[in-house]
Amino acid sequence: MTEETQMTTASGPLPPSLQFNARGNLRHLLTIEGLSRELILQILDTAESFSGMGTVKKVPLLRGKTVMNLFFEASTRTRTTFELAAKRLSADVLNINISTSATVKGESLLDTLRNLEAMLVDMFVVRHADSGAAHFIARHVAPHISVLNAGDGRHAHPTQALLDMFTIRRHKPDFTQLRVAIVGDILHSRVARSQIHALNLLNTGEVRVIGPKTLLPAYVEDLGVHVYHDIRQGLKDVDVVIMLRLQKERMDSGLLPSEQEFFALWGLDEERLSLTASDSIVMHPGPTNRGVEIDTRVADGPRSVILEQVSNGVAVRMAVMAMIMGSGAQAEAEA
Amino acid sequence: MTEETQMTTASGPLPPSLQFNARGNLRHLLTIEGLSRELILQILDTAESFSGMGTVKKVPLLRGKTVMNLFFEASTRTRTTFELAAKRLSADVLNINISTSATVKGESLLDTLRNLEAMLVDMFVVRHADSGAAHFIARHVAPHISVLNAGDGRHAHPTQALLDMFTIRRHKPDFTQLRVAIVGDILHSRVARSQIHALNLLNTGEVRVIGPKTLLPAYVEDLGVHVYHDIRQGLKDVDVVIMLRLQKERMDSGLLPSEQEFFALWGLDEERLSLTASDSIVMHPGPTNRGVEIDTRVADGPRSVILEQVSNGVAVRMAVMAMIMGSGAQAEAEA
Amino acid sequence: MTEETQMTTASGPLPPSLQFNARGNLRHLLTIEGLSRELILQILDTAESFSGMGTVKKVPLLRGKTVMNLFFEASTRTRTTFELAAKRLSADVLNINISTSATVKGESLLDTLRNLEAMLVDMFVVRHADSGAAHFIARHVAPHISVLNAGDGRHAHPTQALLDMFTIRRHKPDFTQLRVAIVGDILHSRVARSQIHALNLLNTGEVRVIGPKTLLPAYVEDLGVHVYHDIRQGLKDVDVVIMLRLQKERMDSGLLPSEQEFFALWGLDEERLSLTASDSIVMHPGPTNRGVEIDTRVADGPRSVILEQVSNGVAVRMAVMAMIMGSGAQAEAEA
Repeated sequence: MTEETQMTTASGPLPPSLQFNARGNLRHLLTIEGLSRELILQILDTAESFSGMGTVKKVPLLRGKTVMNLFFEASTRTRTTFELAAKRLSADVLNINISTSATVKGESLLDTLRNLEAMLVDMFVVRHADSGAAHFIARHVAPHISVLNAGDGRHAHPTQALLDMFTIRRHKPDFTQLRVAIVGDILHSRVARSQIHALNLLNTGEVRVIGPKTLLPAYVEDLGVHVYHDIRQGLKDVDVVIMLRLQKERMDSGLLPSEQEFFALWGLDEERLSLTASDSIVMHPGPTNRGVEIDTRVADGPRSVILEQVSNGVAVRMAVMAMIMGSGAQAEAEA
Repeated sequence: MTEETQMTTASGPLPPSLQFNARGNLRHLLTIEGLSRELILQILDTAESFSGMGTVKKVPLLRGKTVMNLFFEASTRTRTTFELAAKRLSADVLNINISTSATVKGESLLDTLRNLEAMLVDMFVVRHADSGAAHFIARHVAPHISVLNAGDGRHAHPTQALLDMFTIRRHKPDFTQLRVAIVGDILHSRVARSQIHALNLLNTGEVRVIGPKTLLPAYVEDLGVHVYHDIRQGLKDVDVVIMLRLQKERMDSGLLPSEQEFFALWGLDEERLSLTASDSIVMHPGPTNRGVEIDTRVADGPRSVILEQVSNGVAVRMAVMAMIMGSGAQAEAEA
Repeated sequence: MTEETQMTTASGPLPPSLQFNARGNLRHLLTIEGLSRELILQILDTAESFSGMGTVKKVPLLRGKTVMNLFFEASTRTRTTFELAAKRLSADVLNINISTSATVKGESLLDTLRNLEAMLVDMFVVRHADSGAAHFIARHVAPHISVLNAGDGRHAHPTQALLDMFTIRRHKPDFTQLRVAIVGDILHSRVARSQIHALNLLNTGEVRVIGPKTLLPAYVEDLGVHVYHDIRQGLKDVDVVIMLRLQKERMDSGLLPSEQEFFALWGLDEERLSLTASDSIVMHPGPTNRGVEIDTRVADGPRSVILEQVSNGVAVRMAVMAMIMGSGAQAEAEA
């Protein structure tokens, strides 16, 4: 399977308009591709307004709305941040765990969807092991329902990329001056894919990917990144280091050496961190594999903003939900 | 076991007043039997008022009330509609999954109940594999708690029957002029049992049941229905076709032939549908077994109202909850 | 392991101030030890105000607050009362079940905690099989988060002890005049440990423990109790009998005889109950093992206040949550 095939959905290439309604408002958030720089900034600004309200403030923006967490792939952590975001907007939240046996191609998934949408839900937050699952659902969903992609296979994890941009901007407001390095298993990472698109849309000065050839997508340069196969060269003078989680299950496939060897070649320790800019920040989508891709002293060190990412995730998810369901309601009221 | 035995609860025949309080208001909803035509119409009218509010509107009717979903038998779908209904009425909802090892006869169930009711819950929504479970609980529950039967064994599923009546009425307001056929495994279906009682109470013109002798209850004619063992004859000129879900686990018992043979004899396809009235509607309580009891083209076709049934289920459950807990609160305030 | 070791946390002895903030307000509730008599009475009075509101009244005291139930040890019953208490205070509640593989010593627990607290939660309700787990978490938690111990190993279960004091006070307001007997497996009971501390703080006239030597902690007399190895002598003239749940899994360890033999020696039946004061009450933290530590006729008899304990548990947990998170918010507003 080529990279290009992976970038499309299970049902074919992505129509550019699928994420927007007729008025040009965001209807679904499936992937960073196709968003404008302005829209990304608007999401970050909206998240800033929620984040600025202090610790935990409840707003009635989505009172009467229902958000359904459809997790075909278990992830307590991610589900919890979406659940929190929806509840702080005063929406009702239902968690539905669906066995992964229902595939995106099977009729049974469509049947399940039709039934859930008939319950008058406003948004599906979808997590699925198959690339393209959220797009597939967005294509087939009723007109009044929005889909928020919470991670589909190797494809995309747009809210993760947006919360990462939010976190970077808080520390380094001018993206055009930044060197950002993404390190590790780029090939299998939906997070990296979404981050690269977002960094490009924000006109980031330089985006680097660092990893072994076996863990980089073919034609990765076409995404507008500089490729490094030596971590020391790649980290030199960067302002932001984004470490990826090593999917340990890949080990078995023979793509990867041992954990110790991986850390020796691609892990981030204090010595390597010293090659970066003196005020660089270290990011990770979590949960970290300490000693595999990142040393504990770095993960817990003064440059780490890993926990800020988690906090920012709630604000960014609130922003996306409010923009999609708020504007949707407005459109209906006008119609 | 005779039909009569099955129709009674585990603890003996049903006292007619168990579903009503001293003022004659609905206290529990356990079965359609014993309800008046007027009460059913009042429930449908109340559901209409919730359903007419647009897509998803939250009302504060049950604010401060607590609904506990007690599911001894897993059913994500059904539980979800009850959870949604309660949340849209602003009640708090707790989901409790209880292993089916606690039987209606065991002391442990009563112990569990006593503890849960001591937590100051207002309503138990009960789903149980044993016929009579909801009645048993209603008999033993504290005076301030109401029981809503969400399906007990082969006995009753009253909210399903009510949402079916609601759906029929929206398409065919005058029940006295209707021919309604229920097709399939009547014997094991709590849905069919509740539907027949509701259709009779609404003075439906003609109620037919269609199925093999092995899947019809003994003395089924005593329920006031016409029995057909030939689906083509039974479907002739009917206005409403209600297909039942085939419980595949019955196959093993030797009661049923193969799925293919079942479909050949009792399945609904477009050719058989053409025997019904030209404006007939097709219903199914879900989830459908496509190719077993219903052809995909019929399930998804223009006559199908299967997904409307799901949507109407939320409104009807809101209506029942509001009537029971609203009037209960009122009665207390007056007392 | 000596009793003293068990009484300390996994990370060493308990600093007296861990449960209070700089202003002397309750910040965490980890154990009864270190609370003042006045504070306990204040909690009971606050609970009385919630309990006096009638059946189920929702108050907006904690609107905008988020409570996370962190249950490392499954307990539907206890989790449900905390969930109800939080919801009736209008807090948002998230239930997180965490596999017990994450131990209090492991780095992974700290990692998990850091991530959950980054989600801007206000309170962790913690249940854990290891003694000291709640203290460990309270030591490491972010300044804005409070910890409520819902049972840690053999160590403490402070809200259970408080709801027991609440229940006793409703029936017997003057603790100084009371004889209270705790019967059964004292050694393994976090409930007994917390009850003894609470009864002492409230200047209870006499606290007795009744059980076999193998099920009493070493140096138990140092806790200020009278020890009885004969249940008939121990029950004589007591006003309150607290039966403990027999952890059946202890049987396998050889510490205990058969269930029948245990009941013959330490069980409470009507004949033994007749030895107590004529207006004595019978308590049990639930769930009861009928026929093992208590006879069914006693558990369901007129002296039993076991179900009152369950109801009171909701009010007492509301009181503790309101005092901790209410005063916390106040402190912030003043700062």
